[in-house]
Amino acid sequence: MNNKKRILVLNGPNLNLLGKREPGIYGNDSMESFLAHLRESFPEVEVEYYQSNVEGELINKLHEVGFTYDGVALNAGAYTHTSVAIHDAIKAIEAPVVEVHISNVYQRETYRHTSLITGACVGVIGGFGLNSYKLAIEALLAL
Amino acid sequence: MNNKKRILVLNGPNLNLLGKREPGIYGNDSMESFLAHLRESFPEVEVEYYQSNVEGELINKLHEVGFTYDGVALNAGAYTHTSVAIHDAIKAIEAPVVEVHISNVYQRETYRHTSLITGACVGVIGGFGLNSYKLAIEALLAL
Amino acid sequence: MNNKKRILVLNGPNLNLLGKREPGIYGNDSMESFLAHLRESFPEVEVEYYQSNVEGELINKLHEVGFTYDGVALNAGAYTHTSVAIHDAIKAIEAPVVEVHISNVYQRETYRHTSLITGACVGVIGGFGLNSYKLAIEALLAL
Amino acid sequence: MNNKKRILVLNGPNLNLLGKREPGIYGNDSMESFLAHLRESFPEVEVEYYQSNVEGELINKLHEVGFTYDGVALNAGAYTHTSVAIHDAIKAIEAPVVEVHISNVYQRETYRHTSLITGACVGVIGGFGLNSYKLAIEALLAL
Amino acid sequence: MNNKKRILVLNGPNLNLLGKREPGIYGNDSMESFLAHLRESFPEVEVEYYQSNVEGELINKLHEVGFTYDGVALNAGAYTHTSVAIHDAIKAIEAPVVEVHISNVYQRETYRHTSLITGACVGVIGGFGLNSYKLAIEALLAL
Amino acid sequence: MNNKKRILVLNGPNLNLLGKREPGIYGNDSMESFLAHLRESFPEVEVEYYQSNVEGELINKLHEVGFTYDGVALNAGAYTHTSVAIHDAIKAIEAPVVEVHISNVYQRETYRHTSLITGACVGVIGGFGLNSYKLAIEALLAL
Amino acid sequence: MNNKKRILVLNGPNLNLLGKREPGIYGNDSMESFLAHLRESFPEVEVEYYQSNVEGELINKLHEVGFTYDGVALNAGAYTHTSVAIHDAIKAIEAPVVEVHISNVYQRETYRHTSLITGACVGVIGGFGLNSYKLAIEALLAL
Amino acid sequence: MNNKKRILVLNGPNLNLLGKREPGIYGNDSMESFLAHLRESFPEVEVEYYQSNVEGELINKLHEVGFTYDGVALNAGAYTHTSVAIHDAIKAIEAPVVEVHISNVYQRETYRHTSLITGACVGVIGGFGLNSYKLAIEALLAL
Amino acid sequence: MNNKKRILVLNGPNLNLLGKREPGIYGNDSMESFLAHLRESFPEVEVEYYQSNVEGELINKLHEVGFTYDGVALNAGAYTHTSVAIHDAIKAIEAPVVEVHISNVYQRETYRHTSLITGACVGVIGGFGLNSYKLAIEALLAL
Amino acid sequence: MNNKKRILVLNGPNLNLLGKREPGIYGNDSMESFLAHLRESFPEVEVEYYQSNVEGELINKLHEVGFTYDGVALNAGAYTHTSVAIHDAIKAIEAPVVEVHISNVYQRETYRHTSLITGACVGVIGGFGLNSYKLAIEALLAL
Amino acid sequence: MNNKKRILVLNGPNLNLLGKREPGIYGNDSMESFLAHLRESFPEVEVEYYQSNVEGELINKLHEVGFTYDGVALNAGAYTHTSVAIHDAIKAIEAPVVEVHISNVYQRETYRHTSLITGACVGVIGGFGLNSYKLAIEALLAL
Amino acid sequence: MNNKKRILVLNGPNLNLLGKREPGIYGNDSMESFLAHLRESFPEVEVEYYQSNVEGELINKLHEVGFTYDGVALNAGAYTHTSVAIHDAIKAIEAPVVEVHISNVYQRETYRHTSLITGACVGVIGGFGLNSYKLAIEALLAL
Repeated sequence: MNNKKRILVLNGPNLNLLGKREPGIYGNDSMESFLAHLRESFPEVEVEYYQSNVEGELINKLHEVGFTYDGVALNAGAYTHTSVAIHDAIKAIEAPVVEVHISNVYQRETYRHTSLITGACVGVIGGFGLNSYKLAIEALLAL
Repeated sequence: MNNKKRILVLNGPNLNLLGKREPGIYGNDSMESFLAHLRESFPEVEVEYYQSNVEGELINKLHEVGFTYDGVALNAGAYTHTSVAIHDAIKAIEAPVVEVHISNVYQRETYRHTSLITGACVGVIGGFGLNSYKLAIEALLAL
Repeated sequence: MNNKKRILVLNGPNLNLLGKREPGIYGNDSMESFLAHLRESFPEVEVEYYQSNVEGELINKLHEVGFTYDGVALNAGAYTHTSVAIHDAIKAIEAPVVEVHISNVYQRETYRHTSLITGACVGVIGGFGLNSYKLAIEALLAL
Repeated sequence: MNNKKRILVLNGPNLNLLGKREPGIYGNDSMESFLAHLRESFPEVEVEYYQSNVEGELINKLHEVGFTYDGVALNAGAYTHTSVAIHDAIKAIEAPVVEVHISNVYQRETYRHTSLITGACVGVIGGFGLNSYKLAIEALLAL
Repeated sequence: MNNKKRILVLNGPNLNLLGKREPGIYGNDSMESFLAHLRESFPEVEVEYYQSNVEGELINKLHEVGFTYDGVALNAGAYTHTSVAIHDAIKAIEAPVVEVHISNVYQRETYRHTSLITGACVGVIGGFGLNSYKLAIEALLAL
Repeated sequence: MNNKKRILVLNGPNLNLLGKREPGIYGNDSMESFLAHLRESFPEVEVEYYQSNVEGELINKLHEVGFTYDGVALNAGAYTHTSVAIHDAIKAIEAPVVEVHISNVYQRETYRHTSLITGACVGVIGGFGLNSYKLAIEALLAL
Repeated sequence: MNNKKRILVLNGPNLNLLGKREPGIYGNDSMESFLAHLRESFPEVEVEYYQSNVEGELINKLHEVGFTYDGVALNAGAYTHTSVAIHDAIKAIEAPVVEVHISNVYQRETYRHTSLITGACVGVIGGFGLNSYKLAIEALLAL
Repeated sequence: MNNKKRILVLNGPNLNLLGKREPGIYGNDSMESFLAHLRESFPEVEVEYYQSNVEGELINKLHEVGFTYDGVALNAGAYTHTSVAIHDAIKAIEAPVVEVHISNVYQRETYRHTSLITGACVGVIGGFGLNSYKLAIEALLAL
Repeated sequence: MNNKKRILVLNGPNLNLLGKREPGIYGNDSMESFLAHLRESFPEVEVEYYQSNVEGELINKLHEVGFTYDGVALNAGAYTHTSVAIHDAIKAIEAPVVEVHISNVYQRETYRHTSLITGACVGVIGGFGLNSYKLAIEALLAL
Repeated sequence: MNNKKRILVLNGPNLNLLGKREPGIYGNDSMESFLAHLRESFPEVEVEYYQSNVEGELINKLHEVGFTYDGVALNAGAYTHTSVAIHDAIKAIEAPVVEVHISNVYQRETYRHTSLITGACVGVIGGFGLNSYKLAIEALLAL
Repeated sequence: MNNKKRILVLNGPNLNLLGKREPGIYGNDSMESFLAHLRESFPEVEVEYYQSNVEGELINKLHEVGFTYDGVALNAGAYTHTSVAIHDAIKAIEAPVVEVHISNVYQRETYRHTSLITGACVGVIGGFGLNSYKLAIEALLAL
Repeated sequence: MNNKKRILVLNGPNLNLLGKREPGIYGNDSMESFLAHLRESFPEVEVEYYQSNVEGELINKLHEVGFTYDGVALNAGAYTHTSVAIHDAIKAIEAPVVEVHISNVYQRETYRHTSLITGACVGVIGGFGLNSYKLAIEALLAL
């Protein structure tokens, strides 16, 4: 019998290009190699991964896992700043969601300083590169 | 020969969770059971139903029915406040569209007070729970 | 003994000129002839009518009926956009109030896009010409 | 061996209705007939065409062609004014992107005066009807 | 038979205190003595006068004269800056209305720099003391 | 011979419902019973009382008492936030006016944080329930 | 000996095209023919005329006449909305300046609703077509 | 045994210069002489006094007295308009705090019209010179 | 007989320093050498050139050519962001005007993101270096 | 020889009242008992603690440790939203600073949604109660 | 051989009226007499002087001296607050420019608090009357 | 007997780190070595120096010297942009205060473009590195 906790790492638009996209901001590591590291770090957790560039598919995924998983580490990418719909999806589900950012959005353009989703999340972790995801999982496990 | 009027009830993001999501705001009834009631109330109307969490699929649906149906009762959910693209889709089609809201958005967060789509619709009905859809169909039939 | 429900149709500034004023926006029908039609449509309701151009007299009327009537269909006209006092009057009474608009205010000047009273009302119906009043009464009866 | 340059014409929401939608603003020609004309005008270019109403699918397409094509002529339609995610997608790829508009957006509603994507593009061409696409391809070829 | 033109001088809130109220801004003359001078200056005009501190009574008066008089010289006082309802009343009537101000409102508090009624009037005359009324009548006669 | 000071307690819109209206905000006492208490507390003062829901009638009253009374304790209710005309009326008279609020308006909606009339008053007292009126009279007597 | 009053009619950018430019807004009459009429109307006044499209030349002219003329009727055209320098020039001279507008700027784009120069002028007259100039001269003579 | 109520009069920045600083706004009396008068007026109250120009020391003092005193009359001076930290300190303690102002801040610069602390206080009293403090103590005693 | 089309390339402030001024933004080529290239590219067009740093002289030139030329390629430089007067000049003439920018203004300071003249032009082309002018002429020829 | 890393936990205004202040927002634990837990969790780290209500003393402390410590976990409390000076202090030192919040500031008043210091920090962690500090230290150790 | 440094004192609109214009703000001295004093104070500098009311002529002058002079002391007058073009001219030249103001613009109207040119200058000196020019030359010499 | 003028150089937050902090912006010189140079330059002046990171201690110092010194050269650092209290302190004292900045704040973040203290100072000098202090003392001596 599997007693592992289940946590979804959910990535939004353009994060499929990680390692390839603006390395000055997002670093050189791809998400794939980092996920392996993440799963090793949390052997007691089933870390699932999903990425989509489509806002509605992120909502679909939140609905799908939102009533059975133990938490979501959500990097909504650019939708962080424009999506009321993802805010509502987080509010509508039961699983706790932690907002994650790789870069420190406050060091970038002004329109990235506003988050429409933080208010619906448990908390926010940002600016620590890929390590932000690891801290988010720790935060979820400690709830 | 079928002479029934055809009206689409079109629901946007998170409305698939109706009855399950924030019942204090959206009530306990699911959309399914309400649709049965709606169809009974309007035997002279073919009430079709479509829901999607994807902004672009709502636009696709509006295009699909927009030149043959007699009207659309559109609850665009959170996209109401952020989607210029749905506004344009409504403008681009011929069928009249009525904006519907279950809750009174003016009693919620400030960013829900602004609608980007009302100006493209015939009119707006909001705040009456699921009954808002019924009133919208009546409004469409009376045009 | 009279068991009829009592509903007030309450009209604000310039709505006494209906049929005469900017027919491109408000239509050609006068309120008088429409009221006859309204009363016929709801034989089970006593539809009372009051109009004033004076903000305070609208408040007086809301106070007068607000603890005994079954509902108010309120078209506050231009005061919709400027009157905190009417907002407070609606909040202060017990009868449910539905906000009504003849035209779709979102298709007009920007300062008509903001309503100071929606938040105090049960809901809002607008854009369907005089039929908006009829839908409002139906909405009140269904509460 | 094919030495042709490859350029993608990428159209966003509601542009599938071209020729059918608000002809006063967008003209009477459909995109299909115009594409034929476009390909004739640039025999040295492989002009590919893609349209979607889904924001995320536009991003998918940009990712798909963004590291091999010689340029993109992007008319993001209404997403021009609301999509930080498309901005990021353009930044994330290598192919130069030219922003295209059929109409002069400054002669329309105020919310169409702001573009969230221009800053990520090489340049912008707008207001010349379908000819804007042709000028965009010329601009791309001249880079 | 009386062939005189009929013009209403319509004064809003606090203008009954003219001559008494903040003479540094409004001067020392009372409206009464000025009206005598005004009637002498325009023997061919029947100059009627009405003042009220009640916004709705100004609207009532505009309705009353708005379909038979040859013009209105309206000093809406403080309602100039807050009344959409008076704007609508001016739009709803047929008689041309000229906005009048005694003082130069741009030399006073910022909230007096915005007029909600100018857009509904033929034109505006302000800053010339009581002579502003005289110029307004001349302007009306010259239309 | 009567040497008593004369002070007007002037109440604006919806304050006639005191004791009945939103008791969580305004308390359970009616103005009538409180006035008796107020008169007892200041035997040396003739405390007059006037309430109106009509903005212009409040102005009329201010004009009426403004050149003979010793002061006004004005709770302009919702007009506090929207009436430039009452501001002007206060400026136009000689009697000192103290702005009074029962509730602490800063603990309520944002649009109640702005007062258009404070600048014309001597001072402001708010947040102490009905006791605010008593403090206002003391303040007036101490001037 | 010449005892005539001297008044300058000073026109800003694009007003040299009067009669030719957007006749729906500015009318069909040229300034030349109107000036003749103006001079006839005021035989006791020497009406000088100057027009320039250059902001600084309007300032030069104001300086030139500003210490000897009896007044200026200034239609600063588009500079009305952008020129602090003309505001300062008016403040710096002694001759009274009346702001003139042919059209009712409040019926046009929002950025034409703000005047940077009214606060420096004696008063403003606008919306009466070319007759606005005539009224301005009367206003100047009556000062 | 001392049964006196204990109330702190707490003054913020620059109020140590009272009587010396801008007497046109703050009057000629020093705080010292006024405190003597205050203590005489309330023999049943132990009136303590503290002033600091350091925001954090005001917070320290609020913490120090906030769980044992019967109330605080706080004139936070300029920190009224900029200090979220003092707002939080008031919220964090149990003693009721009344906001006090000597001058009518609405008659001064715009940035003095906003208070960041009123929302955390019981109420506000301002504009009555040093008498504002006396009224604040009365208000505290009457709670 | 000369049947050539006549097009004016009109440059605003500081563009006389092209090649010398901020080459990182504007490139190293001077306008002179580029004009030669431009004229070669369009042998069927008479390309006239005018540059001025004076806003009003740009307006003068627009008036001068605006009723006889076949088009204007206008780079208004910094006046793009501040000149309502040039907007009006473009509206006042008959020749179509295309707005041109060398750099991508959206990649520069925020105040360069707003154009006051686009709404009066046929269309806009920007970001392609000096090639923007060439594309503008093509666009004009294709109208 | 001590090879331990040195990290400062730095708390701003009102955080000395932790456990006592608004427990619904900040929880029931005092900082003291939590620090013990924190030190146990990181035996390899010397966790120093400092709290002050004085903005300038927080700056002093940052200067003091900023060139020798391995990192700072800074909860600037209310100064987060108002202090440019703390922003500058963080920028001026060498030690990396992580911004910490106990509560999710986005679920509180709007003025708490803006941080003036995030841009100067490495990253931000907020919303996890006292656990936020623990995550911050982990984040610092992983840099 | 002349080894003197060359510095241009460049004055913008209305500064030709110095000594004559609003002496309360600008003082009684004319620029001419002050220039003599300035030249005496800096015998090692060739102080050239130019004034124009035309924005573009100021730009012309900046271009003219901008590649050979040792510095410019620029008082752009009202253009300080409205001219992006002068900002660009300063950026385009090589000579350092110091922004000068006679009065303290922060003690005047709000629209004078914003400078569009400071960011392009070396520094700013304002509020010291004509002495500001002297300090500016010293600052230029010390660079 | 000492007849020297006394001037205080008063430095705000983080300026104790001069020479150490962000040398790209603030230069490499420490304040200590510069003070020696300053005192040499003005042998007729007693130049006192004080620095604090605490806002209230800057106010204390201003009060302390404000009635006996001949002037203050104040670099309030980040408090320039947030402190109304320092503004008030400057207003409250008699000694003239000159605002000093080392860097050109207009070339940095937008929130550094606004000064809350300039309006209370005699004038402002900024952008000349440490030389700004020297110019400020000269300006003070010349008053």
